[in-house]
Amino acid sequence: MKLSEMNKDELTSFKNSVQDEYDAFKSLGLKLNMARGKPSSEQLDLSMPMLDVLSSTSELNDLDGVDVRNYGGLEGIPEARKLMGDILGVKSSEILVYGNASLKAMYDTIARSYCFGVLGSTPWCKLDKVKFLCPVPGYDRHFAITEQFGIEMINIPMTQDGPDMDMVETFVNNDESVKGIWCVPQYSNPSGISYSDETVKRFANLSPKAEDFRIFWDNAYCIHHLVDEPKCILNIMDECKNNGKEDMVYIFGSTSKVTFSGAGISAIGCSEKNLKEITDKLTKATIGYDKVNQLRHCKFFGDIDGVKQHMKKHAEILKPKFDCVISWLDKEIAPLGIGSWIEPQGGYFVSFDSQSGCAKRIVQLCKDAGVVLTGAGATYPYGKDPQDSNIRIAPSYPPVEELEKAMELFCICVKLATAEKLLAE
Amino acid sequence: MKLSEMNKDELTSFKNSVQDEYDAFKSLGLKLNMARGKPSSEQLDLSMPMLDVLSSTSELNDLDGVDVRNYGGLEGIPEARKLMGDILGVKSSEILVYGNASLKAMYDTIARSYCFGVLGSTPWCKLDKVKFLCPVPGYDRHFAITEQFGIEMINIPMTQDGPDMDMVETFVNNDESVKGIWCVPQYSNPSGISYSDETVKRFANLSPKAEDFRIFWDNAYCIHHLVDEPKCILNIMDECKNNGKEDMVYIFGSTSKVTFSGAGISAIGCSEKNLKEITDKLTKATIGYDKVNQLRHCKFFGDIDGVKQHMKKHAEILKPKFDCVISWLDKEIAPLGIGSWIEPQGGYFVSFDSQSGCAKRIVQLCKDAGVVLTGAGATYPYGKDPQDSNIRIAPSYPPVEELEKAMELFCICVKLATAEKLLAE
Repeated sequence: MKLSEMNKDELTSFKNSVQDEYDAFKSLGLKLNMARGKPSSEQLDLSMPMLDVLSSTSELNDLDGVDVRNYGGLEGIPEARKLMGDILGVKSSEILVYGNASLKAMYDTIARSYCFGVLGSTPWCKLDKVKFLCPVPGYDRHFAITEQFGIEMINIPMTQDGPDMDMVETFVNNDESVKGIWCVPQYSNPSGISYSDETVKRFANLSPKAEDFRIFWDNAYCIHHLVDEPKCILNIMDECKNNGKEDMVYIFGSTSKVTFSGAGISAIGCSEKNLKEITDKLTKATIGYDKVNQLRHCKFFGDIDGVKQHMKKHAEILKPKFDCVISWLDKEIAPLGIGSWIEPQGGYFVSFDSQSGCAKRIVQLCKDAGVVLTGAGATYPYGKDPQDSNIRIAPSYPPVEELEKAMELFCICVKLATAEKLLAE
Repeated sequence: MKLSEMNKDELTSFKNSVQDEYDAFKSLGLKLNMARGKPSSEQLDLSMPMLDVLSSTSELNDLDGVDVRNYGGLEGIPEARKLMGDILGVKSSEILVYGNASLKAMYDTIARSYCFGVLGSTPWCKLDKVKFLCPVPGYDRHFAITEQFGIEMINIPMTQDGPDMDMVETFVNNDESVKGIWCVPQYSNPSGISYSDETVKRFANLSPKAEDFRIFWDNAYCIHHLVDEPKCILNIMDECKNNGKEDMVYIFGSTSKVTFSGAGISAIGCSEKNLKEITDKLTKATIGYDKVNQLRHCKFFGDIDGVKQHMKKHAEILKPKFDCVISWLDKEIAPLGIGSWIEPQGGYFVSFDSQSGCAKRIVQLCKDAGVVLTGAGATYPYGKDPQDSNIRIAPSYPPVEELEKAMELFCICVKLATAEKLLAE
């Protein structure tokens, strides 16, 4: 029976029964963390052989014969540019291999635009108003960057096909202060939605009012499939090139969830014109990123096929965890009609939408019983979910046994918070 | 006989004879590069065993038991904070372990101040004028950073004891637009001068007009001695603390010239108040730097004594190269009285001062004969050496045999350029 169909007595009795379950759980003294999309130890173990591919007896030259131990090579070693290009869908010459975190690459890109503008435009710090479009729910760390730089963030609702493109086009094509949009196009963080072909085509055909508008295409999960025959999104660079608009997009990615989260390599993919501007500025900031680690990655994987094989092993570990989350939701929440979600085909999250006004309460109830979730509201700019309904579930880190417990509790908290709310109305 | 004592005929004959030597050299078709302070392959080989300390069978936990392969640990793992703190002379709690390059740490520090100010001050991008003091000759990459941000650079002459502190005090204590000074206090780049105790004490006792003035203390060569009983500079942090001015200094360093130039670890050392501001901002930019590489370094060295032992091996390789440079200058240039230099006790460079107006010509002559030096002027802000006299010699990279040839040529070029100039007067 759906909660919405219950009368007050039924609801009260339902709530009391769930409250008992909750109290029992609380007394267990759980201590679990599902706040962040962290790989599990088992996943990290997959890359341990990478530590053996370079040793004291190795030749440490790159494909061009350059000693990777020494200074130089700002754009990255050739084989790493090739590998990251193959992952992100651009040419080697369109790749800058960055440090250990694509987040820093994105941050530095915003910082550079803020300080110096984009291909000759006015530096954003000299403008009265700079705006970014933020598909919601979205990635809290994206929003934190734009917030730090005082950039006004505008919520763009996500549909099943990606961001609401009518809204995106209206803003981008008419408002000169709109300088960018945050996108996680494949297996969006957190919704798991992959952008439809039409969405990608519409992105690639934007006609920005601002010459320095850029699409920040964080393709963090482009190879992070959970299913055998994944539907991959269209190649944004190819689509942009078809329209002569290849300068409009920056593509980001990393091996943070491929090898080691703290010790991977990342990359920016962009037109050679954009790349030249980035390296012209960056050459004053560093002589180059860690080429030994680039070589280590390339020797470990060989090529893109090696990466794909490796990602299948991740999927084998992750799939049962996602199945656990979905099966609890299907079993406990679906019949009551008090929440919605999508079963993701890849990525790191399940996005759960409760009834309006319940998310904070659910997260708090979970926390009080020992399970830490991503804070309610975190998936929205400024931490403000106008509906107070979205919760990001990150199932990758805990072992399945713990996840079972955590999801059991989560469902109890959803029921309890929803019943409380309905009774208070 | 000194060139200044020669009459015109003697000078002409001298010049013709040197010209013959130069032409003979040119026909050899040399191809040597002494432009940058790059470690030699032999030096890099010293650290190859570092590649064996972590393997697929290693435990990859830090001292706190945290898995270094995963996300987190923005400040760095405890043992790396201790090690870098011991190197830079500050407490672990005053260390942020950065990425593979201290240059990027310095760049990001300027960028952060430019975008957001320093401990609540007005962001530098909102000010009409920001100035930096630049002891000259100095490090070209420092100057390139401040130039990129449009910061006006003011030359401060170097004395045998460090920068001219009367001038530094006058500017810092009276001009609110002076926001920083670039320092390489031990074995200055390029002069090799180490700051005297009095100089350090005067730095630590500055009373800046600008609350957001900071000393950028790039202690790049603090452990890079060439002699057995080195004279180390005073500890700037201790001195600042004695005066209650510990927020006034940022200290930078790295293992770029200790382990691998492209794959070392770097650090910022600063007061806990400054560190909190840095991490508060940086936490939006990255989840943390490469902790696997931090652990690799710590396991390889053990502790600061391990680092010191390792540096002695570097000195054994470098000392003969510096001796080569100095002996050529002593033999060929000193008797002619046409140049001056200091025999450095550490660091990476020999700074050569020709007669005024000769440096560009010397560098060009060397280049035409196949030996690339750091560009004349590079050791000054905006690449402008007002005397056109300073040349940075970087002897670390070529083998001694090549260096002998290069220095022979260099001395010929100094003679030729000086004779040309004297004859034209």
